[in-house]
Amino acid sequence: MGALDGGHYNGKLENGVKFNGGCLEEEEKETTTATIEDAVKVLLQALGEDSNREGLKKTPLRVAKALREGTRGYKQKVKDIVQGSLFPEAGLDSGVGHAGGAGGLVVVRDIDLFSYCESCLLPFQVRCHVGYVPSGQRVVGLSKLSRVADVFAKRLQDPQRLADKVCLALHNGIKPAGVAVALECWHIQFPGVERTCTDSHHPSKVNMQGWIKVSVCSSSGVFDNKNEDAWADFLSLLKLRGVNMEEKPLDQCWCPSGSLNVPICNGHKNTRNTMTTAVGGILHSLGEDPIRKELLGTPQRFCQWLMNFKKSSNLEMKMNGFGAATEVDPLQANLSRDDKIYSEINLPLWSLCEHHLLPFYGVVHIGYFQGNENQKSITRSSLQSIVHFHGSKLQVQERLTRQIAETYSSVFGCGDVMVVVEANHICMISRGIEKVGSSTATIAVLGRFSTDSAAKAAFLQMVSTTTATAGR
Amino acid sequence: MGALDGGHYNGKLENGVKFNGGCLEEEEKETTTATIEDAVKVLLQALGEDSNREGLKKTPLRVAKALREGTRGYKQKVKDIVQGSLFPEAGLDSGVGHAGGAGGLVVVRDIDLFSYCESCLLPFQVRCHVGYVPSGQRVVGLSKLSRVADVFAKRLQDPQRLADKVCLALHNGIKPAGVAVALECWHIQFPGVERTCTDSHHPSKVNMQGWIKVSVCSSSGVFDNKNEDAWADFLSLLKLRGVNMEEKPLDQCWCPSGSLNVPICNGHKNTRNTMTTAVGGILHSLGEDPIRKELLGTPQRFCQWLMNFKKSSNLEMKMNGFGAATEVDPLQANLSRDDKIYSEINLPLWSLCEHHLLPFYGVVHIGYFQGNENQKSITRSSLQSIVHFHGSKLQVQERLTRQIAETYSSVFGCGDVMVVVEANHICMISRGIEKVGSSTATIAVLGRFSTDSAAKAAFLQMVSTTTATAGR
Repeated sequence: MGALDGGHYNGKLENGVKFNGGCLEEEEKETTTATIEDAVKVLLQALGEDSNREGLKKTPLRVAKALREGTRGYKQKVKDIVQGSLFPEAGLDSGVGHAGGAGGLVVVRDIDLFSYCESCLLPFQVRCHVGYVPSGQRVVGLSKLSRVADVFAKRLQDPQRLADKVCLALHNGIKPAGVAVALECWHIQFPGVERTCTDSHHPSKVNMQGWIKVSVCSSSGVFDNKNEDAWADFLSLLKLRGVNMEEKPLDQCWCPSGSLNVPICNGHKNTRNTMTTAVGGILHSLGEDPIRKELLGTPQRFCQWLMNFKKSSNLEMKMNGFGAATEVDPLQANLSRDDKIYSEINLPLWSLCEHHLLPFYGVVHIGYFQGNENQKSITRSSLQSIVHFHGSKLQVQERLTRQIAETYSSVFGCGDVMVVVEANHICMISRGIEKVGSSTATIAVLGRFSTDSAAKAAFLQMVSTTTATAGR
Repeated sequence: MGALDGGHYNGKLENGVKFNGGCLEEEEKETTTATIEDAVKVLLQALGEDSNREGLKKTPLRVAKALREGTRGYKQKVKDIVQGSLFPEAGLDSGVGHAGGAGGLVVVRDIDLFSYCESCLLPFQVRCHVGYVPSGQRVVGLSKLSRVADVFAKRLQDPQRLADKVCLALHNGIKPAGVAVALECWHIQFPGVERTCTDSHHPSKVNMQGWIKVSVCSSSGVFDNKNEDAWADFLSLLKLRGVNMEEKPLDQCWCPSGSLNVPICNGHKNTRNTMTTAVGGILHSLGEDPIRKELLGTPQRFCQWLMNFKKSSNLEMKMNGFGAATEVDPLQANLSRDDKIYSEINLPLWSLCEHHLLPFYGVVHIGYFQGNENQKSITRSSLQSIVHFHGSKLQVQERLTRQIAETYSSVFGCGDVMVVVEANHICMISRGIEKVGSSTATIAVLGRFSTDSAAKAAFLQMVSTTTATAGR
């Protein structure tokens, strides 16, 4: 309950309360930023990147600002948010009955937030539902329920602790008859870990292949007895918004980083130590205790995840071997050109945004003409390999799209190809901008697709039809 | 293009660029806040409210902070946002082809924003889609498209001007081959003005009864010719997210305040002048020119809208007359108690949040038992009158819910009633918190519904079934 008692820092609160003229706050900010920047430079080097190249020059600063902002909850106090926002309302206590105001259930549903996974340091998405039953004839301003939830979301968390903290803080802050908190949380998948989830209630409505979802609840007071009315009413009001809280217990740890038991690959022991020390320094500078139980392996797990995006020439060699499997029969080399457009839709993609060191994920659609015999070896898995190869490094979506098209062209020896990438960028969800539902689409066209409007339109129509059928 | 050239103010930019140590900025803030606070006190008085009562004491300050924050775009400059976020990428110019990177279309879809209607001063919701084709081998950081759009959204706007400003600013800032902007905008309806719209693509997914939607586009460069590929590709990528831009021209003015030609009711001329002068002062303090053409009638229109929520005893008298129409036949007074639950679902509601002077809107569900003859006069329209009566004043949703239940009980002489209110609060969408999809549900129960869990559950199930069928 650090947020109620004082928190780790004094400083300026988001809601405008100020201490000590902001000077200490500025100094603290600068120290935190410098620590994180240095750590990120260490990580970029370990990834085999040149931290002075144009796209990466400001990455350490961007990461530092995003992390500082994304964990500002350590510096906020619930008391300051709730106080002054409690309003007297007649109701139960005036003898009128269990009718609205004090005495009646109030639920704010579908508050979109994001938090940071304490197990792997990656952001996860949260859809938060908060209910309470007023007592003492006072209600709280609705926006405060969202603001208090955000204080705890903006720290390193796991879903259950987040729910419990929000519940307890609201209970102590509002002193109601009871508080109910329900969270739906989505964690991005890790490469090579096979657990999938498709969820129509996800905020972004995009194909959620590869995401892990958990639902957790927390309650106090009148909500504690799950067989009584208050809890049933809370769940009923959530159902009106299509939210079903299945009360299944949480796995030991929902984060896929728990499944990663191998040591950091692609690096010797010194590199490993340097990286984990750097990440430990980040945790400390944010105001966390790097040796609290839940954080003990976090730097190691974060670095393991990050090393999936290490620049590698091995994969490049692997790609160059493509297509060689099918030799072109010279007797059939002069095939008549086929006018049919072939396509592979919804190839899963995930990659790492080089500007923020945050994942982006989505789907790739590839359309092509079968121009020669070599192309008959094109399979969904060979195209998926190209997508995976270019995803497995520091990227921007624009470049990734172009590279997939170019690699297709050089591997299969035919340049009539069109690539559409649709992706959600975690950097658009976390950080200051917090545009949860937004998604980015990019197009690359080569050869015939760049001159033949009808071919391009036909392929886009195929994508549209396929994705509509899939119920996106 | 004030945002490019320098804007109305110097001061601190959201993205961290600072001028003159922030002192002038603080002074300006205080002046603006004081002006708006004074104006709001004038408005509250004209509404017949006591601005010292608990719920209203801080309303002037809240309104001032919200307006200042909501129009911060006047103080922001696009150049500062875009500069330093242009990255070199290979592509078209390197002779590789029209493939991703420079040369390929980039679209960010579904950016949720809000803006202020220059015609009536109320916030409206915006779903923004931005595309561009890079040139000169440089791409811009994706989040900048959202940030630039937000600069212009955070001003008094109409949809077409907003689209044009965003388009021009991005064109000048990025210098791409072209920019495409598509906006879907939703404006809240006014009482007594009958234009309805139901839209499944609305961000909140809630019943949009009574909202006005317009879609507008703006383009530059390669997007200007609507018959060419770039524009068709842009529309195709929007369609993948279910967005259809019907290219019908905008009405003269989309804002329903245009239909209000009557003078401010419920007040004599002096009150009218005092109110409009106060609102004119607000416009000026925000950095707007109150005599620019589009703003000329805005204070008048805002005040007209506001006066719909003037405290009135007339309506109260009207309500007291209810039920008298049907006299109870003494021979039938001893009716056997009926166990059937009657309901009216989805009664449209709109009201005014007394904490922020911003609308909230949604639906009311009322469940009841028919206990006596008097209740046979209960019609949907009589229940709608109760909803409308309590909505037509400064409110909080908790109190509104209780009052509807209590009024039902006293008008129809039977206390077995349950009221569920589901509403979206503009104050949760605009202001700092910007939780677009969130909605608040409240329950009030009287009599049998407060003791009979099964009755309560049965009514909630009726609501769930009805609203699910209506495809919410």
